[in-house]
Amino acid sequence: MPRLIALYNVPDDPAAFDAHYRDVHALIVERYPNIRNIKLTKPIGVAGRESPYHLMAEMSFDSVADLEAALMSEAGAASARDLRNFASAGVTLFIAPDEAHG
Amino acid sequence: MPRLIALYNVPDDPAAFDAHYRDVHALIVERYPNIRNIKLTKPIGVAGRESPYHLMAEMSFDSVADLEAALMSEAGAASARDLRNFASAGVTLFIAPDEAHG
Repeated sequence: MPRLIALYNVPDDPAAFDAHYRDVHALIVERYPNIRNIKLTKPIGVAGRESPYHLMAEMSFDSVADLEAALMSEAGAASARDLRNFASAGVTLFIAPDEAHG
Repeated sequence: MPRLIALYNVPDDPAAFDAHYRDVHALIVERYPNIRNIKLTKPIGVAGRESPYHLMAEMSFDSVADLEAALMSEAGAASARDLRNFASAGVTLFIAPDEAHG
């Protein structure tokens, strides 16, 4: 199932980040049209190094077309606007289209 | 299921990267003790921006303890050594422990 993946850099204030994500941002993401699943994970580091990411959000859709339509929707625009309210440490977004490795 | 996630930056020579991953690195990863699944995805960009990553490898284990034991194994050491042979553009590693978001 294709996923939109958001990797959030470690914020200055993790508790404030978590509260904003839970109380505001998650509610916007849940409004994405045709979103099938939202998986949130707190990455941990490997081999004694800290994880560069505080939160990974994996948002699943039936197709890449549905995913791209969600990003273009009103909720997608609201989500992008909301990033400035909690993700100033930076976020990396990409699509994992679920294709085979060639 | 806990995952070890490797995000490979876009290499100078993607075809050479892919050949080395397929013919050498994947065979090392398959030797990780107690690895349950390996999922390879080619990320694509969002909203007209290129993906910073060429390849995402998701390696699943029954537990974080099994995952960490795999990294400490002979295959784990061989995998780390092999990175210099194809991943000079950089790789980000972290553990997605499958915990709930708090």
